Amino acid sequence: MFISFEGTEGVGKTTLIRKLYEHFEASGKQVVLTREPGGTPLAEQIRSLLLAVNHDEPMSSDTELLLMYAARAQHLQQVIVPALADEKLVLSDRFTDASYAYQCVGRGLSKDKLNTLNQTFVSHMPDITYWLDAPIELGMSRARERGALDRFEQEKVEFFQRVRQGYQQLHELYPERIKRLDATQAPEIVFQEALGHIQALV
Amino acid sequence: MFISFEGTEGVGKTTLIRKLYEHFEASGKQVVLTREPGGTPLAEQIRSLLLAVNHDEPMSSDTELLLMYAARAQHLQQVIVPALADEKLVLSDRFTDASYAYQCVGRGLSKDKLNTLNQTFVSHMPDITYWLDAPIELGMSRARERGALDRFEQEKVEFFQRVRQGYQQLHELYPERIKRLDATQAPEIVFQEALGHIQALV
Repeated sequence: MFISFEGTEGVGKTTLIRKLYEHFEASGKQVVLTREPGGTPLAEQIRSLLLAVNHDEPMSSDTELLLMYAARAQHLQQVIVPALADEKLVLSDRFTDASYAYQCVGRGLSKDKLNTLNQTFVSHMPDITYWLDAPIELGMSRARERGALDRFEQEKVEFFQRVRQGYQQLHELYPERIKRLDATQAPEIVFQEALGHIQALV
Repeated sequence: MFISFEGTEGVGKTTLIRKLYEHFEASGKQVVLTREPGGTPLAEQIRSLLLAVNHDEPMSSDTELLLMYAARAQHLQQVIVPALADEKLVLSDRFTDASYAYQCVGRGLSKDKLNTLNQTFVSHMPDITYWLDAPIELGMSRARERGALDRFEQEKVEFFQRVRQGYQQLHELYPERIKRLDATQAPEIVFQEALGHIQALV
């Protein structure tokens, strides 16, 4: 089973994924914990290019999108596809929905471009996606506490409000696959909610 | 005018482009000399990822293709499009034809994938392309003399023979745009041939 976790900055994705990973590993299940952009040494190098702040040379929106899919192609081939073939549980911090929310709705890049890349280069989609939703201000203050902000985290509040709307649109488009979790709740409650949902499915 | 230069390793592209650049600059023309993958600081960082030899993690063909187009999108936005808008002459060491020859014919990646990326992300095509053609063995020995071989240069002779066939196919498909230059000739003769051709067009 392939599960992705989505949401804006600081909504608690990392904490939730770690709790689920520890739970399933303790129960003897083979689990792979991974993330996007990244998940392999090469894809992590692409991630570094994507997150680096460079005021001298603005990254074009097309470049950003194509780098995301270059990293994703590597992640699929090296990590996700082999793990699913071995019947492992794959938990990924972000996947294609993030490209829709950030690049299309956040940056205003055409949805046709994204659909084209998804159809051409994405062989596997998540079985379930948990969307951790919380007001932008809450997540931003958590992200700021973590230290220096990356190229995405430095965006204005309005950008993240659009990203959140993007996730809302996806949630309405794919209600079967994408489950919303109220991320203003305590991490333990969010974890129990996600765990209960996964266990009901398995 | 936008001119690209294509060919396998060691056929003399760099020498030809430099001679043309010096000639046109001396004659008072505004010329931009650039290359792919690369042409901007960010695109050069993508180039480094593409050329790096890493035996621990093979790069997927999709990743290679998408990184090429990520670099190209940045190159187009930052260098080529502004230069053409200013009516400068753009001389680029490689462009989309290299993706066809190397990734499609060389690696065997589907031409549909390449066509999709070209249609979606490439806003400007070269007005003329010079294909420097020479037997693979000749170019390979020149490339070897230059020192450590990059990820592409380490490919086997058969790979480069397919790449050369790829260029041949393109030359037959687009005889108006792609002019073949016999790169077994002396550099000065190749230069005079290209220069005469460009001057006849302008």
